[in-house]
Amino acid sequence: MMAAFLLLIAGWSVAATNDEDGSRLWLRLDAVNTPSSVTGVKGTAMTELQTYWQGGPVVLKRQKGLPMDGYTITSTGGKTVIAAANDAGLLYGVYHLLRLQQMGQPCTNLSIREVPAYDLRILNHWDNPNGTVERGFAGRSIFLNPDPARMKIYARANASVGINGTVLNNVNAKPEALSTDHLQKAKAIADQLRPYGIRVYLSINFASPIRLGGLKTADPLDAEVIRWWKDKVNEIYKLIPDFGGFLVKANSEGEPGPQDFGRTHADGANMLAGVLRPHKGIVMWRAFVYKPQSSDRANQACEEFMPLDGQFADNVIIQIKNGPVDFQPREPYSPLFTAMQKTPMMVEFQITQEYLGAANHLVFLAPMWREFFSFVKPASLKAMAGVANIGDDTNWCGHHFAQANWYAFGRLAWNPAITSEQIADEWLRQTFTGDERLVNPMKQVMVDSREAAVNYMMPLGLHHIFAGGHHYGPEPWYNPPGVRADWTPPYYHRADSIGLGFDRTTKGTANARQYPDELFRLYNNISTCPENVLTWFHHVPWDYRMKSGRTFWDELCHKYDDGVRQTRHFLAVWDAMKPYVDNRRFDEVQRKLRIQTRDAEWWRDACLLYFQTFSHRPIPQDMEHPVHNLDEMMKFRINITMYENPVCGYNK
Amino acid sequence: MMAAFLLLIAGWSVAATNDEDGSRLWLRLDAVNTPSSVTGVKGTAMTELQTYWQGGPVVLKRQKGLPMDGYTITSTGGKTVIAAANDAGLLYGVYHLLRLQQMGQPCTNLSIREVPAYDLRILNHWDNPNGTVERGFAGRSIFLNPDPARMKIYARANASVGINGTVLNNVNAKPEALSTDHLQKAKAIADQLRPYGIRVYLSINFASPIRLGGLKTADPLDAEVIRWWKDKVNEIYKLIPDFGGFLVKANSEGEPGPQDFGRTHADGANMLAGVLRPHKGIVMWRAFVYKPQSSDRANQACEEFMPLDGQFADNVIIQIKNGPVDFQPREPYSPLFTAMQKTPMMVEFQITQEYLGAANHLVFLAPMWREFFSFVKPASLKAMAGVANIGDDTNWCGHHFAQANWYAFGRLAWNPAITSEQIADEWLRQTFTGDERLVNPMKQVMVDSREAAVNYMMPLGLHHIFAGGHHYGPEPWYNPPGVRADWTPPYYHRADSIGLGFDRTTKGTANARQYPDELFRLYNNISTCPENVLTWFHHVPWDYRMKSGRTFWDELCHKYDDGVRQTRHFLAVWDAMKPYVDNRRFDEVQRKLRIQTRDAEWWRDACLLYFQTFSHRPIPQDMEHPVHNLDEMMKFRINITMYENPVCGYNK
Repeated sequence: MMAAFLLLIAGWSVAATNDEDGSRLWLRLDAVNTPSSVTGVKGTAMTELQTYWQGGPVVLKRQKGLPMDGYTITSTGGKTVIAAANDAGLLYGVYHLLRLQQMGQPCTNLSIREVPAYDLRILNHWDNPNGTVERGFAGRSIFLNPDPARMKIYARANASVGINGTVLNNVNAKPEALSTDHLQKAKAIADQLRPYGIRVYLSINFASPIRLGGLKTADPLDAEVIRWWKDKVNEIYKLIPDFGGFLVKANSEGEPGPQDFGRTHADGANMLAGVLRPHKGIVMWRAFVYKPQSSDRANQACEEFMPLDGQFADNVIIQIKNGPVDFQPREPYSPLFTAMQKTPMMVEFQITQEYLGAANHLVFLAPMWREFFSFVKPASLKAMAGVANIGDDTNWCGHHFAQANWYAFGRLAWNPAITSEQIADEWLRQTFTGDERLVNPMKQVMVDSREAAVNYMMPLGLHHIFAGGHHYGPEPWYNPPGVRADWTPPYYHRADSIGLGFDRTTKGTANARQYPDELFRLYNNISTCPENVLTWFHHVPWDYRMKSGRTFWDELCHKYDDGVRQTRHFLAVWDAMKPYVDNRRFDEVQRKLRIQTRDAEWWRDACLLYFQTFSHRPIPQDMEHPVHNLDEMMKFRINITMYENPVCGYNK
Repeated sequence: MMAAFLLLIAGWSVAATNDEDGSRLWLRLDAVNTPSSVTGVKGTAMTELQTYWQGGPVVLKRQKGLPMDGYTITSTGGKTVIAAANDAGLLYGVYHLLRLQQMGQPCTNLSIREVPAYDLRILNHWDNPNGTVERGFAGRSIFLNPDPARMKIYARANASVGINGTVLNNVNAKPEALSTDHLQKAKAIADQLRPYGIRVYLSINFASPIRLGGLKTADPLDAEVIRWWKDKVNEIYKLIPDFGGFLVKANSEGEPGPQDFGRTHADGANMLAGVLRPHKGIVMWRAFVYKPQSSDRANQACEEFMPLDGQFADNVIIQIKNGPVDFQPREPYSPLFTAMQKTPMMVEFQITQEYLGAANHLVFLAPMWREFFSFVKPASLKAMAGVANIGDDTNWCGHHFAQANWYAFGRLAWNPAITSEQIADEWLRQTFTGDERLVNPMKQVMVDSREAAVNYMMPLGLHHIFAGGHHYGPEPWYNPPGVRADWTPPYYHRADSIGLGFDRTTKGTANARQYPDELFRLYNNISTCPENVLTWFHHVPWDYRMKSGRTFWDELCHKYDDGVRQTRHFLAVWDAMKPYVDNRRFDEVQRKLRIQTRDAEWWRDACLLYFQTFSHRPIPQDMEHPVHNLDEMMKFRINITMYENPVCGYNK
């Protein structure tokens, strides 16, 4: 009887469609029965067209003069010509055409020219050799025992949005990542990805010469060390002739690096660059560095890297997180981007939602990344990296809508000028349906979702007040004995009886001074500082008068309340999508949105009741009041590692 | 550090006042240092004035001609005279004066004449010999090991609102309630209550002659049985000369009764009445009877009792629950009240919140009882009983605001014409403060609270869709194998693909026919039936058009949503009361209101998602959507007995 009843629950709508499990991502075209006429350059591009293209004849041709990976699509008189300088360019052109077909848009009379903004569009997988994925919320590593069918979907999905590189392992790299055994595995993956224009990269442990090679040092200026790296790189290129290069996290959060041997980041990076140069490999050297002693973690990338500006080899790229702290819901951009003038740079975005509700919250990240590009000129960068949100879950990303962030990362790495609306529109039409009754409301939900998350988690410039360890849910009070200060929320929010926020003005840590003059003046003055980063730069008095006319405390309360109401609205909008979505995905997304809504209330209650112990001010009457008790929330812990998605949030 | 922090939480308001624990109930006058001049009749009335009265001289005098328990208060030239026909009347006059004093109202130039509506104003304690309290949510029985100081507060509280009788034990009575040992205990309690004008009564088990007396039968016409009862009653009156009489639950829910011996309720009641008559004792015989075989539980009191109308002895009162089923958040009145014409009747209200959120929800019951009296003329009744919500919790009732229901019961038993607003006003001023900034908003909360509970639990005539056993929280699907149908929610809600509700029209069980013609016609026709009892009388089609213009389904959804928003509002109003309430009571009430608000969401989600499996209709877009999952709610059980208050509600 219960089973029959549950069927009833799942099936109350008569508009049920065939269930989907999300495993096809946004590539939901079925293979055609009769291939269309496709002529010209043979290869993956041709195969894809022959398998999925339902239109008229297509010619694939090579054409010199077009930039690498760029393509043109021209159709006249029922015939379509895709031209590109290289195979990858043809493939991207083909996916462009197939995307139009899948979205039901006109595929005739086309005159398209597309060139990617960056040559390097790279996923960073934080996958460990044991199969766990750091900050992974979608199961285990897809590279542990790669399934050929799944690897093909992975490759096609990446290629369909122009992603052309993938770092197979965690930046917190184990030395054995370079063992012969692991390199053989990397070779197998590289062989599967190569037909789709995707190169393989590896994260390396800087102490590998010691811990894997048995040397006494890993000093980058030591001849034996250099020889060890040369041998290792030769070994790699024998297996993977188009190997892309190394990603390095050095002297950061306990990882070894050149400073352990009295050398600089430049010494370390340049040594590796020298070894890779003969093979055309590159080094992506991360600027994510901070020491517990510093007065402001946000200052440290500039402090460590500015003295080295201009000293890096030309096949080194400094990989910088978009914000100066760590992938928060909102940060100002990292000032290193505008400070460094003589060094190639790339941005590292985080696709996986370490700080944005893991695989439980619908948060579309394109608006966050577009916000970054409103401060940092795309042309000032050489490449774009994104920390993947991919695992062996059936639907790849844990949350069906998390697929959109993978998609958006690829589209923006190709063209940072595409709007969030356009990306959401494309993705929804391909992933769900072209029915405007779904596309329009859900596009709005997606576009609004990041600001909603900021509201219910960390409005007005708040940052890093997450639960310790797994970073899921609020724990602004987290401050256990012995934990380094810059890993605790009070370091960041600085709540006291006067106000809230981190004074990064020239009266404080002077972090604002790291920005160009115009921005410095804006940020340094509380009356001109944008309110959405107010507590990032200022210790704001509780009674400070905001532009709304409210006190800062009241505004803070209302922002949290706004976030709660926004998530409720998203849930209601999704509920109305039932007629346009298969039952399985409808139900799975609905459950996640319900968790998100409850989590938003948890965030509101935890943060407001905790900060209230400092502000001594009442919750405004014209908003909902907390329904949870602070002492109970403070006792609550979710017992998960950094490799898991929580089943749900607060449940007391 | 945590301890200091929690102090911070508790004390964020600087307006903190001295903590109170609620143990003084609404009697919060401190004893005066110098007694005023009080002359005249000695006794409790005089002692109370000497202890608490702060005004000018008072004379207490006996005056013939006034009805029993009535009094006058007359003040001229600074002297106040309280006159009454009996000691209890003087006491009630004194409490009236003290109430005025405590509320800060004028205590001079008084000209008051008060006469109670009913001679019998009786609490029913459902206390068991082992100390448990059936449907008790405030700890254990206060009668198990009565504390003299607490018993005095209990007696004063009752007398202060005119309650003059108390049934010490559960209507589901154990035979040993009449054992000599238990009678000795009853005597001790009676001695403590007598000075406050309160008589003691006992519930009896009809099979006591067998199970306590060792007889072979309890047939009420058997001479030995009658003799056994005579002896027992003589024993009681030797111990308690002013003993009030018996309360009897017979042939109901498994309790023994005269029908077990082929006799009628009248046979049983009249036999006991005959035994008690020489002592001026009475029998309160409950009409709460229903058999699993019947087609409609709501019909059965009339079916069993109407044939006996006029056959009961004149010291028998038929005690009838206000509604025909069982203390639901809203029921129509029990039609037995208007059907019986030749039999003394009394109403049984339930002060303890068995079906109204136990000691966790703020639900002020005066509006519910006043609603009853809008259908049943107060003058048609002889007495009023209330099932007590009292236990050995420090604050007596579990929830500080549950004290108001005890208070309201007494005030309405004295005068059913007092408005809910007036009762709430009086109680708030005595229990908290006379500050209008608390009295006005909280009075509105109290007056609105019952309709809010109906909205979030059982709007539009729904009833008895509670969790099995403990009756806390929603379980409209509760239907385990083997449980009699009329103990399961589907018996009452009758949800199916067509609609929702119990057809009690002449096309159904014809329960509507038990009402007077005018009401019958109103209830029997779906288009005239008041919407607040619509599904009580009708199986309402999901698409039925309501007065609001909405479909029935949409209206149902909105009613639940209204309830949620109302509880949130109550919480916000209470939060603003912090400056006017001591921290302890503020915090305790706040925690309860938070539970209530979360419970309201649980009710909304559980009922709407469950009924949606029948309605196949979407939740309207212009309201909040469920945030919990039906399958998870269906797996959830609170593991408590019917003697406990749950710590909280749904916590998944």
